Amino acid sequence: MMKRTNINYLRYTLPALLLAPSVTLHGENAPKFSGRPNIIIIFTDDQGYGDLGCYGHPTIRTPHIDRMAEEGLLFTDFYAAAAVCTPSRAALLTGRYAARSGMNSVLFPHSEAGLPQSEITMARALKKEGYATALFGKWHLGIHEGQRPGDHGFDISYGLPYSNDMDRREGLPGHARYWVDPPLDGWNVPLQRDGETIERPADQRTLTKRYTEEALKFIRENQDNPFFLYMPHTMPHTPLFVSDAFTGRSLRGLYGDVIEELDWSTGQILDLLREKGLDENTLVIYTSDNGPWLSELEQGGSAGLLRGGKGMTWEGGFRVPAIAWMPGRISPGGVTSEMASTLDIFPTLMALAGAALPQDVVYDGMDLSPLLFDDESMPERPFFYYRGSELYACRLGEWKAHFITQYGWGLPGDREEHDPPKLFNLYHDPSERFNRADQNPEIIVEIEKAVNAHRASFGKDQ
Amino acid sequence: MMKRTNINYLRYTLPALLLAPSVTLHGENAPKFSGRPNIIIIFTDDQGYGDLGCYGHPTIRTPHIDRMAEEGLLFTDFYAAAAVCTPSRAALLTGRYAARSGMNSVLFPHSEAGLPQSEITMARALKKEGYATALFGKWHLGIHEGQRPGDHGFDISYGLPYSNDMDRREGLPGHARYWVDPPLDGWNVPLQRDGETIERPADQRTLTKRYTEEALKFIRENQDNPFFLYMPHTMPHTPLFVSDAFTGRSLRGLYGDVIEELDWSTGQILDLLREKGLDENTLVIYTSDNGPWLSELEQGGSAGLLRGGKGMTWEGGFRVPAIAWMPGRISPGGVTSEMASTLDIFPTLMALAGAALPQDVVYDGMDLSPLLFDDESMPERPFFYYRGSELYACRLGEWKAHFITQYGWGLPGDREEHDPPKLFNLYHDPSERFNRADQNPEIIVEIEKAVNAHRASFGKDQ
Repeated sequence: MMKRTNINYLRYTLPALLLAPSVTLHGENAPKFSGRPNIIIIFTDDQGYGDLGCYGHPTIRTPHIDRMAEEGLLFTDFYAAAAVCTPSRAALLTGRYAARSGMNSVLFPHSEAGLPQSEITMARALKKEGYATALFGKWHLGIHEGQRPGDHGFDISYGLPYSNDMDRREGLPGHARYWVDPPLDGWNVPLQRDGETIERPADQRTLTKRYTEEALKFIRENQDNPFFLYMPHTMPHTPLFVSDAFTGRSLRGLYGDVIEELDWSTGQILDLLREKGLDENTLVIYTSDNGPWLSELEQGGSAGLLRGGKGMTWEGGFRVPAIAWMPGRISPGGVTSEMASTLDIFPTLMALAGAALPQDVVYDGMDLSPLLFDDESMPERPFFYYRGSELYACRLGEWKAHFITQYGWGLPGDREEHDPPKLFNLYHDPSERFNRADQNPEIIVEIEKAVNAHRASFGKDQ
Repeated sequence: MMKRTNINYLRYTLPALLLAPSVTLHGENAPKFSGRPNIIIIFTDDQGYGDLGCYGHPTIRTPHIDRMAEEGLLFTDFYAAAAVCTPSRAALLTGRYAARSGMNSVLFPHSEAGLPQSEITMARALKKEGYATALFGKWHLGIHEGQRPGDHGFDISYGLPYSNDMDRREGLPGHARYWVDPPLDGWNVPLQRDGETIERPADQRTLTKRYTEEALKFIRENQDNPFFLYMPHTMPHTPLFVSDAFTGRSLRGLYGDVIEELDWSTGQILDLLREKGLDENTLVIYTSDNGPWLSELEQGGSAGLLRGGKGMTWEGGFRVPAIAWMPGRISPGGVTSEMASTLDIFPTLMALAGAALPQDVVYDGMDLSPLLFDDESMPERPFFYYRGSELYACRLGEWKAHFITQYGWGLPGDREEHDPPKLFNLYHDPSERFNRADQNPEIIVEIEKAVNAHRASFGKDQ
């Protein structure tokens, strides 16, 4: 069913040829790939599919991330495993849909819930393999004992326990989060180190800068160990704040300033890896936790040509920019339209670390090594779009069936159930404009089989 | 009013550095820039802003055009001077809004009108300067004596006199033009050489291939002369046809196959220029005549993140992909958000040819040499969006005022007049979602001044 021709692709013949001999990029004393590579995940908050130079944004400039794509592999069909913060983070870190861990909806400061100890995060699994582990950024998986980063495998952590628009000051209007100049004391969010509050309210202007400094320090201190660095940035979630150095820099306005500081941050990390000769031994993945928050006016991002945004099961909610970088192991200049998701990251990292996945756990993703390192296609497999705990849509190959559609999150439109489901060909019609259910009943049968098998898998561990 | 920081931009530091020394790209015997450079304009039909790899399309692969961008300058804010075929072509070739030449609306096979002899095309002006001139592709500016390519400065021509969906066979449904497999004899369009019909109906499957072969032959025959080559491709205007070699190649389906053949064509031309050592002495511009035809279902293109499409004065109708390439003279890897348009091409070419613009003619564009060759900003100037003979909108700097809005051309929505006009900041809000008229009355005053000055200019020559 999936079309195999041309799915992976070398973007530019010439630069790729120039970049290919790694000796031209790296010192001769660069260490060989050791079998215990370092791992860095840069995970931005509410950045849309269209919000990078290399994804076609006209006025956001991201030279460091564009270069990362040029030296690595750019995904056109990569998904966050949920369209809002908490479930997306739970799914990334556990390698399982949030419906399995119960982290179906966004946590608030008053929430009792959090990621249960029965879940094994990639941080815990990698720590067990001898990795140094660190989190710099937003956690958002629980604030109580047993739920915090330190309880889930992170040696050290620094950042916000939840979203930067929570703990809102009394009397402050809700829409203050998308003011061009939001009040610094508008939100009483704590900045925590290793679970202890060290600043409240957090000075949000310097968060990206400080997360970056922490990351650079961690890399320097662990250059002789294998390390796992997770950077779930607070930005560009509203309210937007940016350091002085980036204020007013972008043609795109404040949102662009914020993205350009994230680009700087990414460049700082890649530059340090190059400088220390760690680049060929470190897999770096850049992606976002969900699509753009369309209700935030100019302070919200863009899903490019995709329909919908954050919170929705249209492509704009789930499909995110994604780049994988590991010079010498991942060919430069590649573009792939393979479907992949944050669910694949856990199995991929474990394979890279030479470790087995934890036993007796249902994993929803697959090891992407064949695609990343050998330019091979992945087996066809489904992807499921949840809204809360409910399955709204399923993609299989190039086809996506919507059993339920709903807007909200900044766009008007009520919940609607569809039988037969609405069916879109995402390769031919990435904007989901043309329902082709009538012409393709056999595709719907295949997708329904995949949904049933997925539902049955829940019997196994919960 | 226009923000100057960061408007021009080097995309990738590394590839640019590698590409910069031209000796690595060109033979040592490559001729120096002579002062009488060759000029090639590749002008696609109904290709949208989002329909190239380097503009972010997920499933259209355009390695040759992406490389062209990598070696040249990519425009993020470049406009066709009209949102439909005939006026856009009239404006490009004359350097004047179509309202000046009377070519306000699309010509049909039964039309008596055509581009009047009082208009001086760039072909005629360059021919006078000693250039060999050729057109391979769609003319669409009149079929009668005095209106044809040979009457307007082209030494030779080969192609269709008008759009490929005209001369429709009796009884064929109108929507047959967006069938996946449109009937070969569905349209009785003639293929003409130098104004004489040589094939009818034209075999549309091989048009892109045959235009390309004609272009390569023309370049070979004129490698010692300065030449002007105008390639207004018939594709991707519906009905879509593609040669066997490209059938079924693209993940995007038939529309992608067609674009990928255009990409191949562009690569053939650039490769021949490199092979002949003409690359540093030839300016090549790739752009489209208007936005995507949204009513054509999967056979219509995508405007990416822009609102609207062909025929409309929203950005999706007018803003098009555009790349300028001239290795050794245009810096590689550049991206610019300078506003520019097809109206600027005539003055630019004349400056490049070392010739004066014809006297006593109102030109609407400006010589882009400072931007192309010296990375300098252009002076602030307005751009006007016409629908037919009526001015609907005006852009000045980053702001666009809509005096009238209207959909149609595949989207529902009636004509609406706005007083005050709707006002959008195109840098902050490229999708035209947030009307900021109330907050910026002074911008509206400036734009209205520009509109009045533009209207007054019509007194001068018509």
